[in-house]
Amino acid sequence: MAGNTYGESFKITTFGESHGEAVGVIVDGVTPGVELDEKYIQTQMDRRKPGQSSVTSPRKEYDVISILSGMFEGKTTGTPLFIMLHNKDMRPDAYSDIQYSFRPGHADYTYLQKYGIRDHRGSGRASGRETAGRVAGGAVARKLLEAKGISVVAYTTEIGGIKCETFVEESIEQNAVRACDPEAAVKMIEKIERLAEIGDSCGGIVECRIRGVQPGIGEPVFDKLDAELAKAMLSIGAVKGIEFGAGFAAAGMLGSEHNDEMNKEGFLSNFAGGIIGGISTGEEIVFRIAVKPTSSISLPQHTVDIHGNEKMIETIGRHDPCICPRIIPVVEAMACIVVEDLLKRQAAMHA
Amino acid sequence: MAGNTYGESFKITTFGESHGEAVGVIVDGVTPGVELDEKYIQTQMDRRKPGQSSVTSPRKEYDVISILSGMFEGKTTGTPLFIMLHNKDMRPDAYSDIQYSFRPGHADYTYLQKYGIRDHRGSGRASGRETAGRVAGGAVARKLLEAKGISVVAYTTEIGGIKCETFVEESIEQNAVRACDPEAAVKMIEKIERLAEIGDSCGGIVECRIRGVQPGIGEPVFDKLDAELAKAMLSIGAVKGIEFGAGFAAAGMLGSEHNDEMNKEGFLSNFAGGIIGGISTGEEIVFRIAVKPTSSISLPQHTVDIHGNEKMIETIGRHDPCICPRIIPVVEAMACIVVEDLLKRQAAMHA
Amino acid sequence: MAGNTYGESFKITTFGESHGEAVGVIVDGVTPGVELDEKYIQTQMDRRKPGQSSVTSPRKEYDVISILSGMFEGKTTGTPLFIMLHNKDMRPDAYSDIQYSFRPGHADYTYLQKYGIRDHRGSGRASGRETAGRVAGGAVARKLLEAKGISVVAYTTEIGGIKCETFVEESIEQNAVRACDPEAAVKMIEKIERLAEIGDSCGGIVECRIRGVQPGIGEPVFDKLDAELAKAMLSIGAVKGIEFGAGFAAAGMLGSEHNDEMNKEGFLSNFAGGIIGGISTGEEIVFRIAVKPTSSISLPQHTVDIHGNEKMIETIGRHDPCICPRIIPVVEAMACIVVEDLLKRQAAMHA
Amino acid sequence: MAGNTYGESFKITTFGESHGEAVGVIVDGVTPGVELDEKYIQTQMDRRKPGQSSVTSPRKEYDVISILSGMFEGKTTGTPLFIMLHNKDMRPDAYSDIQYSFRPGHADYTYLQKYGIRDHRGSGRASGRETAGRVAGGAVARKLLEAKGISVVAYTTEIGGIKCETFVEESIEQNAVRACDPEAAVKMIEKIERLAEIGDSCGGIVECRIRGVQPGIGEPVFDKLDAELAKAMLSIGAVKGIEFGAGFAAAGMLGSEHNDEMNKEGFLSNFAGGIIGGISTGEEIVFRIAVKPTSSISLPQHTVDIHGNEKMIETIGRHDPCICPRIIPVVEAMACIVVEDLLKRQAAMHA
Repeated sequence: MAGNTYGESFKITTFGESHGEAVGVIVDGVTPGVELDEKYIQTQMDRRKPGQSSVTSPRKEYDVISILSGMFEGKTTGTPLFIMLHNKDMRPDAYSDIQYSFRPGHADYTYLQKYGIRDHRGSGRASGRETAGRVAGGAVARKLLEAKGISVVAYTTEIGGIKCETFVEESIEQNAVRACDPEAAVKMIEKIERLAEIGDSCGGIVECRIRGVQPGIGEPVFDKLDAELAKAMLSIGAVKGIEFGAGFAAAGMLGSEHNDEMNKEGFLSNFAGGIIGGISTGEEIVFRIAVKPTSSISLPQHTVDIHGNEKMIETIGRHDPCICPRIIPVVEAMACIVVEDLLKRQAAMHA
Repeated sequence: MAGNTYGESFKITTFGESHGEAVGVIVDGVTPGVELDEKYIQTQMDRRKPGQSSVTSPRKEYDVISILSGMFEGKTTGTPLFIMLHNKDMRPDAYSDIQYSFRPGHADYTYLQKYGIRDHRGSGRASGRETAGRVAGGAVARKLLEAKGISVVAYTTEIGGIKCETFVEESIEQNAVRACDPEAAVKMIEKIERLAEIGDSCGGIVECRIRGVQPGIGEPVFDKLDAELAKAMLSIGAVKGIEFGAGFAAAGMLGSEHNDEMNKEGFLSNFAGGIIGGISTGEEIVFRIAVKPTSSISLPQHTVDIHGNEKMIETIGRHDPCICPRIIPVVEAMACIVVEDLLKRQAAMHA
Repeated sequence: MAGNTYGESFKITTFGESHGEAVGVIVDGVTPGVELDEKYIQTQMDRRKPGQSSVTSPRKEYDVISILSGMFEGKTTGTPLFIMLHNKDMRPDAYSDIQYSFRPGHADYTYLQKYGIRDHRGSGRASGRETAGRVAGGAVARKLLEAKGISVVAYTTEIGGIKCETFVEESIEQNAVRACDPEAAVKMIEKIERLAEIGDSCGGIVECRIRGVQPGIGEPVFDKLDAELAKAMLSIGAVKGIEFGAGFAAAGMLGSEHNDEMNKEGFLSNFAGGIIGGISTGEEIVFRIAVKPTSSISLPQHTVDIHGNEKMIETIGRHDPCICPRIIPVVEAMACIVVEDLLKRQAAMHA
Repeated sequence: MAGNTYGESFKITTFGESHGEAVGVIVDGVTPGVELDEKYIQTQMDRRKPGQSSVTSPRKEYDVISILSGMFEGKTTGTPLFIMLHNKDMRPDAYSDIQYSFRPGHADYTYLQKYGIRDHRGSGRASGRETAGRVAGGAVARKLLEAKGISVVAYTTEIGGIKCETFVEESIEQNAVRACDPEAAVKMIEKIERLAEIGDSCGGIVECRIRGVQPGIGEPVFDKLDAELAKAMLSIGAVKGIEFGAGFAAAGMLGSEHNDEMNKEGFLSNFAGGIIGGISTGEEIVFRIAVKPTSSISLPQHTVDIHGNEKMIETIGRHDPCICPRIIPVVEAMACIVVEDLLKRQAAMHA
């Protein structure tokens, strides 16, 4: 398959399934001599882990990372960082009653078609567990970006039809859904809890802002900044769409409305979302992703088993009724990786 | 920059600027022994060229392609196909009055920031002219897909706020905006003509359907089918968003609504847009892209010149007031390339 | 640095330093459904490990591998195989007296220049320990090749000026230097033991034969079969040259001598070493590599420390006086990886 | 096949067959703002072209290059340079009598096996004509290296058993075989002329020196400087081996002889050929390649036709009896590309 690597100059390769022994990442292309420690990475891992609140899966994964190579005396050496997590709460038997049926919305059917193998122990590489390696790799990228004055923040703007009306950045990590509007957050949490009770799930929208990127980053023509961000985001399991700046609303705008005019101080608006011609403008980079409702629900659904027999299925397990809060650190991680990679590529061009 | 290549097993590398001498493409990884001729490719080129109707730029590009390598006795040899087009209607002087100012919505500013060079002869690689090489390469992919029973069709579903209400496939190539609803098409054309008169422009939405792809195509985890399509589409200049299946609407759905249930005959719905876990389900692959309004408008806009002086600018030239009709062959071309590449990668895995 | 991945369709990414906590490999692009177990891989690891005989380093590494992902019920799943080895015999203090000086022939100086970091705990990624991951990855490739009737064997043909005169394949794994001539092997071992006593080292030549590769494998023009093998072999630490078939002797031959003529049965000779135009001919693929004498010797040598002070240095430690016997499984591993990758790429082209 | 691209940060993609309409190269990743003109590139092309002397093929190729994109006002723009040459002296009929037989030493048989296509018009991508694109791309790299104080020179050290005994650098371009010893050159030319008369050919050895590369260049572990140079050189048609520094002679040396000791001024010897651990030491980088005798000879040889019938064949045509003099600019071009690419990668790592 050979699709488990992302990046060119800053590169991550992940491995591991939800119910195997370990998951992790090799991070290649790391700037040498940068101070880094496991605690820094662990902070990001903890934002992704299940069991953080009433709206996330109660599964305990003990996402404790170890850095097993690429460090010396507290600094990166420039050689590959290897970061691993053991899977400590493996319960393959929890899935055994559904092992021969395709769960609607899950990759069970497509994985069988692709590989000719039915690994019923979870969702294989399609599991959210796979993203642990990304978050670890993203934490390394985030550390490198910090030194360049670049920050990345993502947050929920909509869940189950409830939209944020304000943007209170400091409230994001204070509420269980990581919404930018603390009042909307309360309603979102109520909605999720109600859905969880009846065994259903809901989707939402997550927005991401990248600040401090100098103008000129992004590689025409195929590796544009927005093209790379789009690939990186759509590579996250539950994401079904992405839009930059005005996004789909741009379809209904006039050129005279959408064009970002300039004066001496810079751009007068940012409908482009900080990217024109695939290259950063120096403005805030803004994009939103559509997150589908979690596929695992305990309501009965029509499906077939691997022998083609029709049957009803209920996906009983330990799942997130809404994945938005836990997808946010993954979105940030991938955004960090994309930007660090393109910054390094820009340096290569001018070398 | 080194971002001018797309694909792994089926690969295109494009070159050329809008106002240089030539544009073109090297197509690598072509299946040998496939019948192909310039006429087949030319048919696709003609769908992309300007001057097709009242709603496209009157510029004449004479997009006549030549295949200069990779063919023998009417068949592909497996060695790189080189396809070139001369730029016959270069009029750099048409742009001379704006050569020192940044056109709002254009990549003038970002290119200068990236390269430190101000090439005022048009938009460089950010020009729509660059897509000619993509369409030529896409035609080769389309030929290879035809033999596998795979077809790709894109069409306009919305322009300037006017939405298609019906899907009449055979009408698509019969109207100037390539809309799937012939009645909406009439209104769209009127709208565009009205905007053209006052020197403004508008955006729209283009939908694409890929049929006949077997289940199992797409490479977890980073090179998912939707991730690759997202990258390919966002690499097209005017595209500001993409969504698959239910897309952004999925954010407001419940899991019990969005999950595609199955029976013996297959899937009972296709909210996933034919892709689950990044792998094709065998259903029709459906995605939509947001197309921004054309940046080039002749209304006065605020901008600065390269010395930082504020001024007003009007982009007088030969431009498309709405790029949807001409972006469609580019969307199809990139979709063909993505699918052919992933089909080849699937074959490699099982070899 | 991002140079820790080899291959396109079959891909290995290695990590780990000699004196870190672990080394290992992610193998991506593995054919799914292939029976594999840790024992199969361990067999190859054991051929590489130190302490096998009087002529190898007495260091104990306990190269016990674990497969931590990519397997299900004894078969590959098509998802990345992750294979790890803990470094159990770390003795960084053994190196402490040389930590501020550059050992002649070692990468100490070049690593410092490259990374700006002085990691004195061994040789970092330049250590032979890095090759453990390669051998593990190569064992996976070997398993895939076996099903296709392809075998790879490497052996010593010269050590310390003593050359093999016969080719007795079954004797190779019977003698401590893995020479193809059992009588020469005895002399080679004596020579190595004599050098070890005085603290010196010697080089040698290793030959490799790949059998069963169908004609047509190898990708013109840059990824030729011989070009990929050359890259793979020169990426092994102590290798200073490679030649195919007649190799450097071809420089002194006439075309009428070197050309391999054909009759109905096939080729009448194999001066080309089984590769013409970068593509396999179907004949045995034959190449030889030059292995330099081990850099670590305990004789006094001139060097400087990191402050520029001249001094004498003796590399006391646990080293192989001749690396040929232990480089052989690494050569085979890389050859297996190159061939499996190119076989998959050939399948992709024809898909 | 998708093997027609070399490089990561500085990248060339070549196309074209010996008897097609054109050959050429797309050079991607070019530093913007560098002065360049067609004349600079043409100078290198002229060193490669046939018909330069009595010892090269009398074929006239009129290798006149055109730069068709990537330039503006005499400087590179950072966008892809496209450089093309028309094939003006196509004489496919000259080959028609051999169109159904496999020429010994040529890639006729392997290409048919690979692609299932018999393109009898020459050697397809295996033709020396393919290297024209490399030389053009290499000239661009050479221009970028010049600004960094790096130079590359290659020359013949042995032809037909006659070895150079002196190194007179300024004599290299003064003699028809580009030998570094003017007296040996005279004998080499006599030897080649004698062989040409009887329709035979001979091989030789070419040495290359790269000067001015700072220490620290090359990417552990797979993309080592020597590994990349080995791949690049073995990707050239007639090359059958490569060795660095002491090379194969190192196999017979002791560690105490081969290790390059250091004092305050630097290294006391350069048996390593300027590369240790795959990274440049700052010393001159030195390697040698084995060039096989030209396969095209007019003496009768045994072969079979594509139907399996045995027959005799004489390759009458316009060929070089020894390819060394014309391979030299190709060796230099590839060396320039490898070094420029790795310099850019080093810059990316430290960015």
